[in-house]
Amino acid sequence: MTDTEHATNGPAGAVTISYIAESAGVSIPTVSKVLNGRSGVAADTRARVEALVHQYGYRRPTPATRSNLMELVFDDLQHMWGVEIIRGVERVARDHRMGVVLTEFGPQRSSIRYWIDDTVARRPACIVTVAQLSEDQRNQLRARGIPFVVVDPTTELPDDVPFVGATNWAGGRSAARHLIELGHRRIAMIAGPDQVLCCQARVDGYRSAMTAAGLPADASLVARTDLDQKGGHTAAMTLLSRPDPPTAIFASNDLQALGVYQAARQLGLRIPADLSVVGFDDLPVAALVDPPLTTVHQPLTEMAVAATELALALGRGERTPQVGLELATTLTVRGSTAPPRP
Amino acid sequence: MTDTEHATNGPAGAVTISYIAESAGVSIPTVSKVLNGRSGVAADTRARVEALVHQYGYRRPTPATRSNLMELVFDDLQHMWGVEIIRGVERVARDHRMGVVLTEFGPQRSSIRYWIDDTVARRPACIVTVAQLSEDQRNQLRARGIPFVVVDPTTELPDDVPFVGATNWAGGRSAARHLIELGHRRIAMIAGPDQVLCCQARVDGYRSAMTAAGLPADASLVARTDLDQKGGHTAAMTLLSRPDPPTAIFASNDLQALGVYQAARQLGLRIPADLSVVGFDDLPVAALVDPPLTTVHQPLTEMAVAATELALALGRGERTPQVGLELATTLTVRGSTAPPRP
Repeated sequence: MTDTEHATNGPAGAVTISYIAESAGVSIPTVSKVLNGRSGVAADTRARVEALVHQYGYRRPTPATRSNLMELVFDDLQHMWGVEIIRGVERVARDHRMGVVLTEFGPQRSSIRYWIDDTVARRPACIVTVAQLSEDQRNQLRARGIPFVVVDPTTELPDDVPFVGATNWAGGRSAARHLIELGHRRIAMIAGPDQVLCCQARVDGYRSAMTAAGLPADASLVARTDLDQKGGHTAAMTLLSRPDPPTAIFASNDLQALGVYQAARQLGLRIPADLSVVGFDDLPVAALVDPPLTTVHQPLTEMAVAATELALALGRGERTPQVGLELATTLTVRGSTAPPRP
Repeated sequence: MTDTEHATNGPAGAVTISYIAESAGVSIPTVSKVLNGRSGVAADTRARVEALVHQYGYRRPTPATRSNLMELVFDDLQHMWGVEIIRGVERVARDHRMGVVLTEFGPQRSSIRYWIDDTVARRPACIVTVAQLSEDQRNQLRARGIPFVVVDPTTELPDDVPFVGATNWAGGRSAARHLIELGHRRIAMIAGPDQVLCCQARVDGYRSAMTAAGLPADASLVARTDLDQKGGHTAAMTLLSRPDPPTAIFASNDLQALGVYQAARQLGLRIPADLSVVGFDDLPVAALVDPPLTTVHQPLTEMAVAATELALALGRGERTPQVGLELATTLTVRGSTAPPRP
């Protein structure tokens, strides 16, 4: 093929590594270095090659040379649900006899700049990521032909990013409906940060159930705070100190719900006799607290299983019918909810 | 060197791969296959080569060819403290820019037979294991020159197995002493399974504190059960239904302590007014329950950090002054302990 043919075929044709080298004005080994995440390439050269690789949609033609490793990435493992995710990934990895390289970027996220290079050098079959990768990072992985699937995305993703989430809206709706069916009318919601997508969906699900039941949408009954116990405690203290306190509180996650437990105890309210509480996630702790917490079960292990199966299928070059899916949440009724006092 | 010289030098000298091949009556590539965990070697041949490798103390002379991967192994990740261990390993791995391959053998432990082969093929710098490897498995790793460190060993290990544990005996002692200092005299202990070493140490620490305080060693106050909430609940129901119930209970772990919480609630006993409770581990849940649990803090993350540093040092071929150590536990006093009723 001549240069002209290449240029004409452009991104649609079978772009070769030599064409990228020529376009970037560098040698083939240099392009190879960039693609393999090796050092010894100037930053601007690397950026130029990456831009062309992305522009032309270059895919490495050698999936057969991939290692029998896959990657699992977290921003921060402190969340209690980390183990549930890991167990799902490990279960599938065992079935495929695949090693799982686990990376936690950590609170500083300082390691993220090495991670792409090291990951590319390891030639993993695929990546399952709980960490929110930037568009730039996603492009770098795409350029190297490493497929990835996002578990439980917290921000809106472009349509072409494969993900596995949970039905947060439906979960929020079923939590509120459970309280409505018990006879509650003044139902408060402790919402999470506005920018976290799943939190928005949970609040909207709650609002939808309230509206469907013909209950007034009292905006002052929705308190917005952090997704931890302290946030839940503070919000509950405010809500429960009102002249017309709610008889039930739906928290955006289990940790917030445990903050509500603290506030109730401080105010001398018994759960569920004086106050019903519903959480979200169904962390192991939910069944252990007293009274055991009614909560929306998020199928974290199953989400991780589905994400891993999808990522491995993409790694084998399979076309999958669906690149984004949400697994159903289910309401787990325990001891923290009851009809309101008559 | 002649065969005679080899035979004379035996395990002490610099044993070569060709000497092992000759001794086993196989080719050098066959020995290489065994050492690299590749297939295509008959089981009895593999066993014969491994036995000689172990017998002669053969060490692969090429640590430089190791990958920048290390391994972290669990039997079963369901334990709440898994994340604490993982975070410690990840922290050190980040500093060394080392990838961590995480393996969970799973409830069936069916994957363990592949794990050694796959691990050897990955040429990791070292292994940190929470899983209890058998002597045979340890020998296979030794034969391949892959150093390993055991975190929180549950069984007695030979002196030459590097480990990082916690001061379980001292922790048990400080828990009991705390209750004694509050004025308790009838202090019960919920012990764990007899074969779990750390549980034995915790009970002995409790007994030591009781004896030191001149309190009678009442064997009927020690209940032995499983290390979960159900076990703690059953044991506490029995202890608290006695005609002379204890005023305080020290549980072998936090999950058992949460079972004591359940039993107390069922029997109408308030914690800490009617009953003091102490746990062990200081899982994240301990601070979240109501009342927050007084417990012996096990420095799991620090143990994992120390184990990883030690394993990496062994992987670099360094001689470390200490191959086994216990990190100090500390008593974390929260809301579940108080003086007994007068």
